Amino acid sequence: MNRRLFLQTLPFVAFGQDLIVRQRDPENLEFPFTSLDSYVTPNDRFYIRSHFKTPELDLASYKLRVEGAVEKPFEITLDEIKRLAQRKVTATLECAGNTRALLNPPASGVQWELGAVSNAEWSGVPLGALLEKAGLKSNAVEVVLEGADKGEPKNDPKPVGEIAFARSISIEKARRPEVLLAHGMNGSDLALSHGAPLRTVVPGYYGMSSIKWLTKVRVVTERFQGYFQTIDYAYWDRTNGYPLRQPLLDMRVKSLIAQPAKNQQIKAGSTVTLRGAAWTGEADISKVEISSDGGKTWGQARFLDKANRFAWRRWEFDWKAPSQPGRQFLMSRATDSKGAVQALQHDRDTAGYVIHHVIPVEINVL
Amino acid sequence: MNRRLFLQTLPFVAFGQDLIVRQRDPENLEFPFTSLDSYVTPNDRFYIRSHFKTPELDLASYKLRVEGAVEKPFEITLDEIKRLAQRKVTATLECAGNTRALLNPPASGVQWELGAVSNAEWSGVPLGALLEKAGLKSNAVEVVLEGADKGEPKNDPKPVGEIAFARSISIEKARRPEVLLAHGMNGSDLALSHGAPLRTVVPGYYGMSSIKWLTKVRVVTERFQGYFQTIDYAYWDRTNGYPLRQPLLDMRVKSLIAQPAKNQQIKAGSTVTLRGAAWTGEADISKVEISSDGGKTWGQARFLDKANRFAWRRWEFDWKAPSQPGRQFLMSRATDSKGAVQALQHDRDTAGYVIHHVIPVEINVL
Repeated sequence: MNRRLFLQTLPFVAFGQDLIVRQRDPENLEFPFTSLDSYVTPNDRFYIRSHFKTPELDLASYKLRVEGAVEKPFEITLDEIKRLAQRKVTATLECAGNTRALLNPPASGVQWELGAVSNAEWSGVPLGALLEKAGLKSNAVEVVLEGADKGEPKNDPKPVGEIAFARSISIEKARRPEVLLAHGMNGSDLALSHGAPLRTVVPGYYGMSSIKWLTKVRVVTERFQGYFQTIDYAYWDRTNGYPLRQPLLDMRVKSLIAQPAKNQQIKAGSTVTLRGAAWTGEADISKVEISSDGGKTWGQARFLDKANRFAWRRWEFDWKAPSQPGRQFLMSRATDSKGAVQALQHDRDTAGYVIHHVIPVEINVL
Repeated sequence: MNRRLFLQTLPFVAFGQDLIVRQRDPENLEFPFTSLDSYVTPNDRFYIRSHFKTPELDLASYKLRVEGAVEKPFEITLDEIKRLAQRKVTATLECAGNTRALLNPPASGVQWELGAVSNAEWSGVPLGALLEKAGLKSNAVEVVLEGADKGEPKNDPKPVGEIAFARSISIEKARRPEVLLAHGMNGSDLALSHGAPLRTVVPGYYGMSSIKWLTKVRVVTERFQGYFQTIDYAYWDRTNGYPLRQPLLDMRVKSLIAQPAKNQQIKAGSTVTLRGAAWTGEADISKVEISSDGGKTWGQARFLDKANRFAWRRWEFDWKAPSQPGRQFLMSRATDSKGAVQALQHDRDTAGYVIHHVIPVEINVL
């Protein structure tokens, strides 16, 4: 709540030194990734992604509704949710549009650089527990998660008027123990900008599935075809040849270099430690490699964190700068336990999303 | 074939007096609806809708492929198709964008006025017969119909590169006896511009489902999410509250006035016969009414044709012009056997498609 009030009194500039403001209304603020120095991102540096104006929910009357293809639809208060069996999950959330600002040609949308990604320990109740309480009907196919945030979508083809932000996940995913309805973040109550009083956290999926200000869980019997599932946050899947419009779901394997930062000056011949993080979808990060010769040769980075499904893994690599001055391009490339490797080029079928190719960081050796 | 060759030597002007050229490449030509004077539209006046350049198919080697979730995929030649049990179906096809040019505010796309609609007797083989020959697997959900015409889609979000024009229909619809793979039109061989050697005719659905130059019938186990099913030729369905992106399918009840034409001069006090046609989706046209007072009062038109499911029904109405000169607005309104009635306003959730509201024709009483 404090964050929200604080923001309202701030000019449209960087949010102190904690967050980079990409957009003030709706709130879109970026974790300054080059300052990465902890496994869990502190709450006041965790990136904020909002599609519409932050809704003002009355905590006293707040209820979550579980409805649709269920035997016993019900409403539940936050206190009642807090009395159910609690669970903690550490999960990295990345906005599907992270690093969009680095695309060439440019793509429209919030111009995120490196930091629309953060890692936190979430606490709450598994979504599956509420679905079990409601009793899924046999024809249930997906669970639609709907937030209290409403507004007019931006891009054609779009429905007329305002809609709530809503996405769906499969019944199978919804039942996984790590999919949480979270009210806590890194040991504190969830802040309003992060979705208080209750948000979904869907580990392994891009952030758009982790609906903030959750008010409705609707079980449906057909695949959900809402705007944010078909027009926005979707891509062209060519798995079966003919391109098919499919919703973005799983995060793709990705690594970013935090230090040195772009344009940083490095002394010729010195050894510097490259630092960064790597993450993926429903797999573990198994390898991060570094190249400073455009991808001809790669050296293996060491991990700072153990593999922890759904959380990023920080890494380090000692790099010896050339003895001659000049521009250098540092590249990191991650591999996951399913064998997925970062590509060298962006896939145009995902347009301004899923930007997970190797992104070179240009530095200056002096 | 003749039509195609003829067109290639024509300047970009009206196609003789037979068709109104809206676009030359790809071929988009309109039936001059104000000339409506027959139940079946003559082949040289039947509207032509093409998304991409007309493909040049080699008749000698032409084969239709039936594949996907079937027990026995196969290929079949045109001669083999002609040796199967044949069927004739009279069906009205209307482009989902018909009368788009009359929208205010304007909508992008081919600027059809009244005549992207025509009626013909189609001859061919029921699609269901080929599906039966192939043997549907139990998990079959839809049938994707793919043409030989390929090109780059126009509007974002779109896949990169060229795709074939393709749409799907449900298994249930695909099995209906009236859904044809047609090689004949009004007793003649199908012309190239109309989809030769073989096209689908899906009576009751807007024209975009009646795939021309058909080369592939692919049975699929999930709803087809191709560009022309999700981005283009789709609308926002609010049946269950939250707007969902759904493919256009059924034609909606509609009537148009052919005569008098817009801006026609009528003698004060004279009686003129209004003429037009009305059509709908999976129902019969049961009533057409006429108003010349902005919809305050309506008089009932008489039908020229019997109700014939999937074909239009022409109508007439004797109207006495006022004794005083002035502008007059004539309106027609159709009702179908399911009780659907034309609305007075266009539904903005269908954007530049499904323009089936009452369209006034302005005339001049002198």
